[in-house]
Amino acid sequence: MEFSLGEIAHLLGGEVEGDHQAKVNTVARIQEGKPGSISFLANEKYEPYIYSTDSTAVLVSRSFAPRKGLKTSLIRVDDPYVSLSVLLQAYERMTRLDKQGREAPCFVAESAKLGEGHYVGAFAYIGEGAVIGNQVKIYPQAYIGDGVIIGDHTVIYPGVKIYHGSKIGSHCTIHAGSVIGSDGFGFAPSEDGSYKTVPQVGHVEIGNHVDIGANTTVDRATLGATRIGDGVKLDNLVQIAHNVELGKNTVIAAQTGISGSTKIGAQCSIGGQVGFAGHLEIADGNQFGAQSGIGSSIKTPGQKLMGSPVLPLKDFYKSYVVYRKLPDLMRRIEKLEADLLGKA
Amino acid sequence: MEFSLGEIAHLLGGEVEGDHQAKVNTVARIQEGKPGSISFLANEKYEPYIYSTDSTAVLVSRSFAPRKGLKTSLIRVDDPYVSLSVLLQAYERMTRLDKQGREAPCFVAESAKLGEGHYVGAFAYIGEGAVIGNQVKIYPQAYIGDGVIIGDHTVIYPGVKIYHGSKIGSHCTIHAGSVIGSDGFGFAPSEDGSYKTVPQVGHVEIGNHVDIGANTTVDRATLGATRIGDGVKLDNLVQIAHNVELGKNTVIAAQTGISGSTKIGAQCSIGGQVGFAGHLEIADGNQFGAQSGIGSSIKTPGQKLMGSPVLPLKDFYKSYVVYRKLPDLMRRIEKLEADLLGKA
Amino acid sequence: MEFSLGEIAHLLGGEVEGDHQAKVNTVARIQEGKPGSISFLANEKYEPYIYSTDSTAVLVSRSFAPRKGLKTSLIRVDDPYVSLSVLLQAYERMTRLDKQGREAPCFVAESAKLGEGHYVGAFAYIGEGAVIGNQVKIYPQAYIGDGVIIGDHTVIYPGVKIYHGSKIGSHCTIHAGSVIGSDGFGFAPSEDGSYKTVPQVGHVEIGNHVDIGANTTVDRATLGATRIGDGVKLDNLVQIAHNVELGKNTVIAAQTGISGSTKIGAQCSIGGQVGFAGHLEIADGNQFGAQSGIGSSIKTPGQKLMGSPVLPLKDFYKSYVVYRKLPDLMRRIEKLEADLLGKA
Repeated sequence: MEFSLGEIAHLLGGEVEGDHQAKVNTVARIQEGKPGSISFLANEKYEPYIYSTDSTAVLVSRSFAPRKGLKTSLIRVDDPYVSLSVLLQAYERMTRLDKQGREAPCFVAESAKLGEGHYVGAFAYIGEGAVIGNQVKIYPQAYIGDGVIIGDHTVIYPGVKIYHGSKIGSHCTIHAGSVIGSDGFGFAPSEDGSYKTVPQVGHVEIGNHVDIGANTTVDRATLGATRIGDGVKLDNLVQIAHNVELGKNTVIAAQTGISGSTKIGAQCSIGGQVGFAGHLEIADGNQFGAQSGIGSSIKTPGQKLMGSPVLPLKDFYKSYVVYRKLPDLMRRIEKLEADLLGKA
Repeated sequence: MEFSLGEIAHLLGGEVEGDHQAKVNTVARIQEGKPGSISFLANEKYEPYIYSTDSTAVLVSRSFAPRKGLKTSLIRVDDPYVSLSVLLQAYERMTRLDKQGREAPCFVAESAKLGEGHYVGAFAYIGEGAVIGNQVKIYPQAYIGDGVIIGDHTVIYPGVKIYHGSKIGSHCTIHAGSVIGSDGFGFAPSEDGSYKTVPQVGHVEIGNHVDIGANTTVDRATLGATRIGDGVKLDNLVQIAHNVELGKNTVIAAQTGISGSTKIGAQCSIGGQVGFAGHLEIADGNQFGAQSGIGSSIKTPGQKLMGSPVLPLKDFYKSYVVYRKLPDLMRRIEKLEADLLGKA
Repeated sequence: MEFSLGEIAHLLGGEVEGDHQAKVNTVARIQEGKPGSISFLANEKYEPYIYSTDSTAVLVSRSFAPRKGLKTSLIRVDDPYVSLSVLLQAYERMTRLDKQGREAPCFVAESAKLGEGHYVGAFAYIGEGAVIGNQVKIYPQAYIGDGVIIGDHTVIYPGVKIYHGSKIGSHCTIHAGSVIGSDGFGFAPSEDGSYKTVPQVGHVEIGNHVDIGANTTVDRATLGATRIGDGVKLDNLVQIAHNVELGKNTVIAAQTGISGSTKIGAQCSIGGQVGFAGHLEIADGNQFGAQSGIGSSIKTPGQKLMGSPVLPLKDFYKSYVVYRKLPDLMRRIEKLEADLLGKA
């Protein structure tokens, strides 16, 4: 996939200084530019690189005045950083989202309905009664179970498995290997020490504009629904147990786990490798540091918390500073005891 | 999939009060019931909902005497909670376990043997010499390597990968994306700082009635077998390293990892995000709190443990209570030192 | 797959004492040997087992002088342990690496190029412009995206997903379910509380002789590359975020996560369930204990570190010893206060 500088300037409403016909096929940092790449200069600190970069072109502001000769072509735009973002999105769309049609062989059940502009990759599976919106892209080897509903413009990457009855909103992205709607971990103890499986007959409901990383797991509810709110972002290898609810725009970093029936409010921000116990309620806007452990509900919104068990961030660090001095503290106590004994 | 109230009453040995022909297609909590769903009333606390629920029918005990008019039909049974469980299991069986036959295309090696009543989904792969029992369900895109043995009534969900030579018992369930029998993590250091791969030529043996969640990994042994005992339940994203042995009915929550050659006894209960070092022996019936870290063997059975490194639960909380007061403790020591100095 | 003792002796440059025609088909520990298996005796401690083992043959040193009669045949070699390793590697090669050709159906884009001696399993997908080296084995249901480059002798196990534009070196092994090149976790906050996806247009570059376990995730860079150095070994369920760089021969155990843009030096050794914050620099040769948490850069090479936040290993244990005594410490301080008050 290649673009000429003329085409890029047209897309960005900018002006070329240099060769309109020159082609670029990738984006690179200005200090790492190579022929065929386009870079950008948004921060003055990087200006020295523009005189030596091997990039074919650099996005600069309209007011940029070079202090030396340039090897590279320029594309002048109003705001190079915003233009970069526009350019990257266009690049993305063209490199992976323009896929259309069905590759053979794929398996689409007769009763499944697919919208316009869809892509179904080879070896993808779409079960009975599934309803797939417009412009949905289903990559190779993905599994869409019976009765699954997927909204418009959602992208399902290779090897994602969505169990029967799950509902996925529009404008979502689910990355490779993630599993949506597998059974919740529910077992009832028997008298002989064995465990009987509790059937998990609920489902998963995912809102709009949700992003899910690679190899993440979201379990179906025992009864009712496991709910992921609009705008939620989940990183890789995250575990969401049965009947969990995540509020709008909550963001969760990699390898964090949320146990069954815990409800997390909106606009929370959760670091990596954090663990939540089950049946908790977490108020809106709380922020949790990496590796925190949360064992009880949090009613106050908007706090910063850390540690396992979790403490307010300030208290965590205060205790930790003393923790590092514990051997010294011990010595001081022993000295006090000896001194006091000496006085006795 | 729909059932009439008459069919359900027949299945449960109950009696319909209302429309025998009315159809239901899902199970819902009584407070969330909608037309087409069936609910249950097992706890008196929820009785008020039965007068307003939109569920088509509610399972009630034979002795239930409504104090007002009802919109919903009733099905009277001996024990609504037990009947619910029977109903859920029947529902489960029909919505996903009644799949039969082979979808095309699938890949079944000529030398593989499959029992009666099997299901092989599209794009599933069954290697040379595999032996698959009766009523085994292999969902789409699952991989069953050469020489794998699977017992009767086991369900393998989409995209599970079982490496060559693994043995899986009967009545097991393995959820999507889990990997059984991948190589153990064994590398021998060379003089130049690089590592040489130690071939992993053992295998994995999984007992009967084992449930494994989504995206969990169980490594093959270096020599001999990694063994998962009968009745073991593993949640999602669990890591079981090479030559680990898990005793009967041990239950492990999500994101926990067991390092190589560690042997865990029977009837243990292990929380989420717990880590075990390698080459340990853990006695039967021990319970580990979430995020624990276990660095040495535990010979005493039946304890409750927590923390990293792990402590008996009571000691963990006693130390933690003081930990939170460390900054205060420091001040008190400083005051003691000043006071004592004042007296000197 | 079976070998005669004569064939094995030929492979190892050894001599058979016993039945040259006897066949073995697996390797077992000497104390667990069964007919059809071959064992080895490298450590004197195990000598008693050689007189009772049911193994068909045992590898022994040329100087081994039995003190009793033997049921088993012997193969005498220079060094039984080294011979075992040679034998295991040969066994490995034959049981899984001798696969050749293409199973049907697989999907290979017309513009993809494959080297000699390749294997492409059923339901594997190879995208446009992919370049695959010689002797590369691509197992069933693996996904190789558009433009991916894979070096010679690399093995891609079932269900691995490699996104477009990733580069994988030679002599690498990637185990089932791992995902290479999924989008980094990059979101820019908007004024309304929602997050806008930052396009991830970089890629992943993996060196030579890299081993990656099952269900591990390696994200593509935002711009530029996420880099995994030569000889790196990653265990199962590891998370490598966007723009991370891992130095040569660094080894990372299961369930560890490295946040975005962190650079880890060469020859580091990282335990399981460790977490690194983003944008750190870690010097060469550092070793991190399991469950450590690293929040700031480490400039000194070659240390042993542990804890969360991380401390030098000695300090970690010193503080931890006192941590366990905190309730006692509290009592001693209270006694000191009371005593001092008594004196006042």
